[in-house]
Amino acid sequence: MRILVLNPNTTASMTATIRALAEESARPGTEITATQPLWGPESIEGHFEGQLSAVAVLDRLATFQEQFDALVMAGFGEPGREAAQELLDVPVFDITECAAQMAMMLGHSYAVVTTLDRAVPQIQDRLLTAGLLQRCASVRGTGLGVLELEEDTERTVREILTQARAAVEEDHAEVICLGCGGMAGLRERVEAELGVPVVDGVAAAVGFAEAVVGLGLSTSKVRGFAPPRPKTITSWPLSRHLPGPGGN
Amino acid sequence: MRILVLNPNTTASMTATIRALAEESARPGTEITATQPLWGPESIEGHFEGQLSAVAVLDRLATFQEQFDALVMAGFGEPGREAAQELLDVPVFDITECAAQMAMMLGHSYAVVTTLDRAVPQIQDRLLTAGLLQRCASVRGTGLGVLELEEDTERTVREILTQARAAVEEDHAEVICLGCGGMAGLRERVEAELGVPVVDGVAAAVGFAEAVVGLGLSTSKVRGFAPPRPKTITSWPLSRHLPGPGGN
Amino acid sequence: MRILVLNPNTTASMTATIRALAEESARPGTEITATQPLWGPESIEGHFEGQLSAVAVLDRLATFQEQFDALVMAGFGEPGREAAQELLDVPVFDITECAAQMAMMLGHSYAVVTTLDRAVPQIQDRLLTAGLLQRCASVRGTGLGVLELEEDTERTVREILTQARAAVEEDHAEVICLGCGGMAGLRERVEAELGVPVVDGVAAAVGFAEAVVGLGLSTSKVRGFAPPRPKTITSWPLSRHLPGPGGN
Amino acid sequence: MRILVLNPNTTASMTATIRALAEESARPGTEITATQPLWGPESIEGHFEGQLSAVAVLDRLATFQEQFDALVMAGFGEPGREAAQELLDVPVFDITECAAQMAMMLGHSYAVVTTLDRAVPQIQDRLLTAGLLQRCASVRGTGLGVLELEEDTERTVREILTQARAAVEEDHAEVICLGCGGMAGLRERVEAELGVPVVDGVAAAVGFAEAVVGLGLSTSKVRGFAPPRPKTITSWPLSRHLPGPGGN
Amino acid sequence: MRILVLNPNTTASMTATIRALAEESARPGTEITATQPLWGPESIEGHFEGQLSAVAVLDRLATFQEQFDALVMAGFGEPGREAAQELLDVPVFDITECAAQMAMMLGHSYAVVTTLDRAVPQIQDRLLTAGLLQRCASVRGTGLGVLELEEDTERTVREILTQARAAVEEDHAEVICLGCGGMAGLRERVEAELGVPVVDGVAAAVGFAEAVVGLGLSTSKVRGFAPPRPKTITSWPLSRHLPGPGGN
Amino acid sequence: MRILVLNPNTTASMTATIRALAEESARPGTEITATQPLWGPESIEGHFEGQLSAVAVLDRLATFQEQFDALVMAGFGEPGREAAQELLDVPVFDITECAAQMAMMLGHSYAVVTTLDRAVPQIQDRLLTAGLLQRCASVRGTGLGVLELEEDTERTVREILTQARAAVEEDHAEVICLGCGGMAGLRERVEAELGVPVVDGVAAAVGFAEAVVGLGLSTSKVRGFAPPRPKTITSWPLSRHLPGPGGN
Repeated sequence: MRILVLNPNTTASMTATIRALAEESARPGTEITATQPLWGPESIEGHFEGQLSAVAVLDRLATFQEQFDALVMAGFGEPGREAAQELLDVPVFDITECAAQMAMMLGHSYAVVTTLDRAVPQIQDRLLTAGLLQRCASVRGTGLGVLELEEDTERTVREILTQARAAVEEDHAEVICLGCGGMAGLRERVEAELGVPVVDGVAAAVGFAEAVVGLGLSTSKVRGFAPPRPKTITSWPLSRHLPGPGGN
Repeated sequence: MRILVLNPNTTASMTATIRALAEESARPGTEITATQPLWGPESIEGHFEGQLSAVAVLDRLATFQEQFDALVMAGFGEPGREAAQELLDVPVFDITECAAQMAMMLGHSYAVVTTLDRAVPQIQDRLLTAGLLQRCASVRGTGLGVLELEEDTERTVREILTQARAAVEEDHAEVICLGCGGMAGLRERVEAELGVPVVDGVAAAVGFAEAVVGLGLSTSKVRGFAPPRPKTITSWPLSRHLPGPGGN
Repeated sequence: MRILVLNPNTTASMTATIRALAEESARPGTEITATQPLWGPESIEGHFEGQLSAVAVLDRLATFQEQFDALVMAGFGEPGREAAQELLDVPVFDITECAAQMAMMLGHSYAVVTTLDRAVPQIQDRLLTAGLLQRCASVRGTGLGVLELEEDTERTVREILTQARAAVEEDHAEVICLGCGGMAGLRERVEAELGVPVVDGVAAAVGFAEAVVGLGLSTSKVRGFAPPRPKTITSWPLSRHLPGPGGN
Repeated sequence: MRILVLNPNTTASMTATIRALAEESARPGTEITATQPLWGPESIEGHFEGQLSAVAVLDRLATFQEQFDALVMAGFGEPGREAAQELLDVPVFDITECAAQMAMMLGHSYAVVTTLDRAVPQIQDRLLTAGLLQRCASVRGTGLGVLELEEDTERTVREILTQARAAVEEDHAEVICLGCGGMAGLRERVEAELGVPVVDGVAAAVGFAEAVVGLGLSTSKVRGFAPPRPKTITSWPLSRHLPGPGGN
Repeated sequence: MRILVLNPNTTASMTATIRALAEESARPGTEITATQPLWGPESIEGHFEGQLSAVAVLDRLATFQEQFDALVMAGFGEPGREAAQELLDVPVFDITECAAQMAMMLGHSYAVVTTLDRAVPQIQDRLLTAGLLQRCASVRGTGLGVLELEEDTERTVREILTQARAAVEEDHAEVICLGCGGMAGLRERVEAELGVPVVDGVAAAVGFAEAVVGLGLSTSKVRGFAPPRPKTITSWPLSRHLPGPGGN
Repeated sequence: MRILVLNPNTTASMTATIRALAEESARPGTEITATQPLWGPESIEGHFEGQLSAVAVLDRLATFQEQFDALVMAGFGEPGREAAQELLDVPVFDITECAAQMAMMLGHSYAVVTTLDRAVPQIQDRLLTAGLLQRCASVRGTGLGVLELEEDTERTVREILTQARAAVEEDHAEVICLGCGGMAGLRERVEAELGVPVVDGVAAAVGFAEAVVGLGLSTSKVRGFAPPRPKTITSWPLSRHLPGPGGN
């Protein structure tokens, strides 16, 4: 089976990190294709960039030529999962929800450790809408921006551990979710130092995608995620009209 | 004061309908400017089109040259309000939320009567995220598409009344919200036949915008809606690069 | 349009403060009438006094001779809004709910800063019943009694700021509501020092009343707020039988 | 021990019915005193009358000369319990909450069958505020007014059974609460015909009062129900100033 | 009336403590029978032991020869109440739920002070399932194991007070529930030092059992708690086959 | 990897059905071991049998000699998952929760179609405790007992379809979960006739177990699922003392 992993920002090094983790997580026989939008923000740290990236991701999907059996959306807290479910016949996995769901399999409550404080309400709202907030003990920011995560790994690990320990001791979380696609790859180290299970959303999403595809299941099309109705959409797909690799 | 009303789709007749209602609702001294995206779907009936329109709206805002004191987003159930709040210094009013809030001032519970069934979970999720779902008795679809609303007004009113009556009698709603920007203008007629208050989101949003602007208030910028951080966003604003009125 | 603003206690200086703020908030052409009950407690700091004042307010309404287009009930956390909705044909605005609703238009979550700690559960319950608690980050008391607020404005501002800052920093509130009619007039100063939007319920209620009346809407009468049925109520209105201005 | 049972309306025949049921429910050694307000509505069918009766009840308590060990407030869905808790040192039992609590001891979910439809949201809100709504399957009105209940007992039983059966079969309630003090006395007959446990709030409240008083417990005074602070309350108690048995 | 009180563990001294408190709480004419399982854990400190004890309790019930009018299950946070409700015709009272319900009659919110931290989520889940969590301010562990409670009463009281005070001051609880059957007997002393009402679940359950039995009510059998269907259950009751007093 | 699948009842034909489905669902390289308790009920249709089976399952685990990497508990709505999590170092998957979680990946809301009506509240409570109830549209019973499912497959499919269609059309479910281990094997046929995704909990649990084990994750042991403390548990494991294969 082939899983398409979409990094929602345009930073190629993050796409590479996410691809590496997805490949490491996949079982033999699963092929990982990782890509990123043809335009949009270099990192996503708020609603504005989240909205842009959602459409940049949909645009990438609309122009993507290869076949795949499942989509993993690798933006933590980003919108767009529902739209992709409408657009595609194959099942779609959002790393925010997959991280929370795997965490709920492992402990009574979980916490998310993410990048900036400003992302906290956004992530809480995604979990609320997904019906997964009840057992969320807290969402905590490290104060590090998305692109800062890769600058100094030691500092990143240290700041994640500080918030993760507070989540365990003060908020009574029993499992920690790494709340950014850019934290992919730090899971084992944080878990070893923390002593509680740590879940990475990309890895969780790949595993769940394998499980769902393996059972021959896909998105329900009867109501909320029915295919878009035929209509005029001017300038779509956008990348056809934009400068750069996808456009003219 | 000047209020910018943004129809999220590209259908000019709907922009005109919404403008007319906004102008009718505004008090003397309030100037209404109504516009629509430079690209995107002609109507919004699902998540995919909702996401596109959110970015088309943000794009329109990024290229809009005139000053305004408040933004009214005239898509019912559409995403993007939070992103606009990040982008703008002036307050932002989503007609979904404004309709629900005004309805809650008028009765113990309210219902929404919207277009297609497929929009129902989307609207419920918007209300949930906004913290306004508790007193929502139901969201009901008429089965009419957005552009069908204008085709046969008699049929539209009849279908709205059928669902509105069921909402009052079976779901115990005490107030009805018209759940589509394209229903603007039918409020009085539906209310007269139904005998319970009927709220139109565009009118509610204009009124609330006048109230908030009048008090000198605007969006909090301390956390969830802080301005976007400086960063590289390729091809933004999109319309600069697209064919048509905003592009090259 | 004429808005009747009802201070629920019998302290004339508070009625004057509330009137001044309402007048300042109202737009040109809106006429503010402010009054207070003919009997009852001089301040409201708990359920017992809240219940008394609710009936004193209803009694004032039953004997009030002038016409008005909307009622603003200026007690924060006090009961009685639903009863007034039954009694009146014009719409009714409770400052607790209006403050919360305007705050929800301005930020992801809000907090209330009120007088005594004992009022906190009462306010939380009003917000719960109104369906507005979900996005309430906290309700915090300053420890100052209602009539103490006017004694030393410097101290009052200081104590409000202490709790408001804690609400922003610890509880992650993005907007602050002033939780007592007696705090009317401090809004601008608190906002200037705090740096986040501060909402006063009286001002919010006047603005929302103007919006609702402007659209020709009023309370739904189909179920929860239907007019009282005809029946014997002995000694009603009470003030007809009590010593003082309204009685014999 | 002596339990004071307060019928919140001024209809003496209802006070007698409630007293009879309370006496029948009380264990040997418990003395029941039943009384009613000195003024106010003859029946309570909405918020307005509920607010009046709450103060009429508080007024009755303020002028009541005899000692008692617990108060039972016999209005279903009426406000005022919290105020009485502030005012009294002895514990206070509201029949709405006691009925729901006893029902929750007997089945997985319960329903309330009450008088008029207009009372339904009021009762739901009381249960919500009391933290007892989660396991409430439904609140259903019979369409009978409070004073109609005594007019034709056969009809009353028939209408209660119709709604109770619907609550069991359609709403999956496992226990039925009789939702009006005026239904006291019909419990056994309804239960015999229905085949599921039927709870009367007056009987439940007397039993719970005996349990709490027996353990030497009473209302917590640390926060929400602390005694009223000393202050000027003009014309209080009202009945001192009103015509009739309590006044001049 | 006769109430059977079942200590869920096999420690006879705890059965004696619980019996003594139940007898002290019962009114004249109520006969208390206290017993314990014939096999199982000496104390219950987690889910595994909770599940064992639930079946050991059901086994004890299946082989108990004497008549009784109500069952009190004296394990705090333990499962099994629903199963006993299916099995018995008489009503069943779980001390966790009874403590919470009595606490809700006495204050706006309550806290539970229990033994080990590991029991906290288990107790919260019981309260959630019972529909009683909404007004629970917190559940706090003292760090003392069940059998440690009796070792050093001074230390036990001290640790309970530490957590109870934090619950009142930080979590705003107005009533404290003692969260372990083994704390029975400390209620008065903790209450005297704490100054807020303290509820013991065994005492509350006895009082509620007296109230319910006195009214001739019992568990609803229409749905969730219908009697078990006839079927083959091998080795049941277990104690018939086990070594020791009940077996061979 | 080896997954142990535990049928909670003693009916060997159901164990065989469940094993077959688990094997069919597992990917190459996963070894399925299926077993059943050594004593207990032949089917589980209520709380009493659910509690027995939970301990019979724990007893089976305590005496099971072979190694395994994950446990799948194949009782729908049965208790005991948390206890197994305490007891085992390997992760534990309950088919109720896994079915709901996979359903939430495929649609906006889901319904469960189960055996008898009496099981409905039990299943709802499991989902509530697991934090998965928010997006559950309904739980519906077919009226068929567990052992009746295998008697007449045509009737079983027909009854499941009747309830599943009602769940889709009336309750707006977008995905159906088969709510009994004994329905394993009917998934494809029901899905084909229904036209919406149908999830079987055993298959879902096997897939999730493979995903979690593949990532090297297991249950958090820091709080709610810490290993049982050392203590005396008489007669444990029970099967050592009972007649039959495990005992003497």
